[in-house]
Amino acid sequence: MENRRENPSTDNDIVVSSRLRLARNMKKFPFPTIKDPLSGKKIIGEVFQSIAVAMKENEKVFRRKEIKDLTEIQRLQMMEKHLISPQLANNYETGAVVHNEEETLIIMINEEDHIRIQSLLPGLQLEETLIQANQIDDVIEEQIDYAFDEKFGYLTACPTNVGTGMRASVMLHLPALSMSDQIHGMLQFANKIGLAVRGVYGEGSDFIGNLYQISNQVTLGVSEEEIIEKLKEVTLQIINKERVYREDLIKEHGVEIADQVFRSLGILKTARVVSLEEGMKLLSDVQLGSSLGLLNNLEITWIHQLITLIQPGSLQSDVGKELDSKAQNIHRASLLRSKFGNH
Amino acid sequence: MENRRENPSTDNDIVVSSRLRLARNMKKFPFPTIKDPLSGKKIIGEVFQSIAVAMKENEKVFRRKEIKDLTEIQRLQMMEKHLISPQLANNYETGAVVHNEEETLIIMINEEDHIRIQSLLPGLQLEETLIQANQIDDVIEEQIDYAFDEKFGYLTACPTNVGTGMRASVMLHLPALSMSDQIHGMLQFANKIGLAVRGVYGEGSDFIGNLYQISNQVTLGVSEEEIIEKLKEVTLQIINKERVYREDLIKEHGVEIADQVFRSLGILKTARVVSLEEGMKLLSDVQLGSSLGLLNNLEITWIHQLITLIQPGSLQSDVGKELDSKAQNIHRASLLRSKFGNH
Repeated sequence: MENRRENPSTDNDIVVSSRLRLARNMKKFPFPTIKDPLSGKKIIGEVFQSIAVAMKENEKVFRRKEIKDLTEIQRLQMMEKHLISPQLANNYETGAVVHNEEETLIIMINEEDHIRIQSLLPGLQLEETLIQANQIDDVIEEQIDYAFDEKFGYLTACPTNVGTGMRASVMLHLPALSMSDQIHGMLQFANKIGLAVRGVYGEGSDFIGNLYQISNQVTLGVSEEEIIEKLKEVTLQIINKERVYREDLIKEHGVEIADQVFRSLGILKTARVVSLEEGMKLLSDVQLGSSLGLLNNLEITWIHQLITLIQPGSLQSDVGKELDSKAQNIHRASLLRSKFGNH
Repeated sequence: MENRRENPSTDNDIVVSSRLRLARNMKKFPFPTIKDPLSGKKIIGEVFQSIAVAMKENEKVFRRKEIKDLTEIQRLQMMEKHLISPQLANNYETGAVVHNEEETLIIMINEEDHIRIQSLLPGLQLEETLIQANQIDDVIEEQIDYAFDEKFGYLTACPTNVGTGMRASVMLHLPALSMSDQIHGMLQFANKIGLAVRGVYGEGSDFIGNLYQISNQVTLGVSEEEIIEKLKEVTLQIINKERVYREDLIKEHGVEIADQVFRSLGILKTARVVSLEEGMKLLSDVQLGSSLGLLNNLEITWIHQLITLIQPGSLQSDVGKELDSKAQNIHRASLLRSKFGNH
C-alpha cells in the first residue's frame, strides 16, 4: 500500500491542477462595492497601478483587462480557463482582471471582494501556489492598505472568508473511484472534515469527465499552511485510493477497461459530432488509459490542455465567431480528430 | 427516379445474396422420414450415388458429410453459412449434406423433405440460382424417381411446398429504410402480395444488422419463372426506395450519417469486446458508408464475408475450440481489429 504514487513530484496523472486564492479588500473603500461603481473604478486604478510597480520590479509582463472591454466569447473562455469567475464575468461596470502571460497568476478586481489573488499550477503544487500568491500579495500590500483586523485577520465581503481569506483547491481526475461505490463515501468523508467537493464543469453536483474539485471551507482560526497541509493530506489519501482501484480494475476487468479506453480513442479519431459532455468522457477515458500505461504515446498534460480547448468559449474563440450548439459539436469533433490523428 | 441503380448487374451493395431451394422427395420412400431411419439411410446412399455420377460427368468436386460426423461447432458454422438449416442440423440420425467447393450449391438430405437442393449466389442473381439448381436437379432426377403428381406438381412433406417445391429469397441490407418509418409499410406490402419477410440472424422478427430476407410463400399454381419474376420486381422496387432514402439521408443528415459511419469504423479498429449484435450493427454502418461513397477503400463483398466470419460458429471454428460468450466477444473484437487495421 505504501508508496503507490508513480509521480511523487506532482501526481499529475490524477491531480490536474492546484489552485489557491486570497481574498483582500482595501481599507479605504467600502466592501462589497456592487452598489458603489465610483469606488469600484478607483479600486481598478489603484490595483492596476500597484501591479505596474510589480511589473517594473520583476520585469514580468502582466495583461490588464476590464470586463466591459471583453467579448462574450472571451469572457466565456477566461471562465473556462479559471482565470475569472462567473460572478466577475457578470460585473460589466467595474470588473477587471490582471494576469501574467503564463496564466498561472491572476488578480480579479471587484469580484465579491476588491481583490482576489489567484494562483493556478498544474499537478499537486499547493505549497507553490501559496508562495506565488504570497509574492504578489506582498507587492500589492506595499502599495495598498488592506482591511485587516488583529483578531480576525483579513476582512472579507462574505464572513465565510474572513481570516486567511484563502481558499485552496485541487482538481482531481478519479475515473476508477467514480466507477465504484466508494466515491460517495469518500466525498462524504471530505465534507465531514471540512472540505467541499464539487464538479469542475457543468452544473452543481455533476462530475463531468470524472473531474472533482476539493477545497477547504474553513478560513478562520487556522493558518494558511495548516489549510494546505490538511488539503494535501486528504488529496494524497484519495490519490492512493484511486491507484488501488485502478490496479483492481486492471486485474479484474482488464479487457473491459482496455475496450473502453481504445473505443474512446477510436471515437476521438473518427467522430464527426461530439457534445461537450461526451468529449469530456472520451478524454477522461484516454487519460485513464494513458495513466494505466495502455496508451504510452499520450501525455497527460496534453490531454488536460485538450479538456480546456473543447470548451464552448475556446472553440468559438478558435473559429473567431459564435457557433450554435450543433456547430460547436461539429467543430469539437473536428478539433479532436485533428489532435488525435484524422481518420 | 428511373435508373437509380448503381450496380445494375447485381446491386450487391443492397442485395447481399440470392437463394433458391427446390424441395424433392423420392417416390419409393415414405415422407417425411423422421420416424423411419432405415429409409433415411437408404436415401443418403442413393443421393450420394447420384451426386457421384454428376461429379464424374462435370469434373466437379462435391463434399459429402453426415450430420452425425460433424462437431457442434461445424454444424453451427454450416448453419451460419446457410449451407444447412437448423432442422437438418438436429437430425443426427439420418441428416446429411452435399455441397460444392464454392459452397454455392448444396443438397440437404433428410431435412423436412428427402432432398432439398439449394443454390446460393452473391448479389441479385435469382435467375442464375434457378439455372444452377435446375442443373443439379436434372442430374439427380436421371438417377432417382421423384414423387410427382401431374396435377399438383412435386409432392412435399409439408403441403405449403407442393407444386414447384421452390422457395426463392433475397437477403437485403436496408439501413436507410430501417431508419425511417417506411420500413413497416414496405414489409406489410410485401406480406400482402404473398412474400414473407424475416430477419436473417437472431430470433424471429429481429432485423439485426439491418438485414432482411424476402421470400415467396406460394408454390402452387405458379411457375418457377413467375415466382422469381415477382420476387425480383419487388426487390428492385425496394432497392430503388432504399436508394432514395439514402440520398435523403445524406442531404438532410449528412454529418450525422458520416458521424455514425466513421464512429463505427473507429470502434471496429479499436474495440476489445464486441457482441454479435453490435458487430453486425458496426458492419452495417460501414457497409452503408461504403455504399454512400464515404469509405471508398472498403469492398462490399468483403464486408459480407466478415458478417459470416463474426458468427459464433465461424469464430469457434477459427480458434478450433469452444468459446463461451465472453471469449467469443473478445475473439470477435480481435478478428475485426485485425481486418480493419489494428490500433
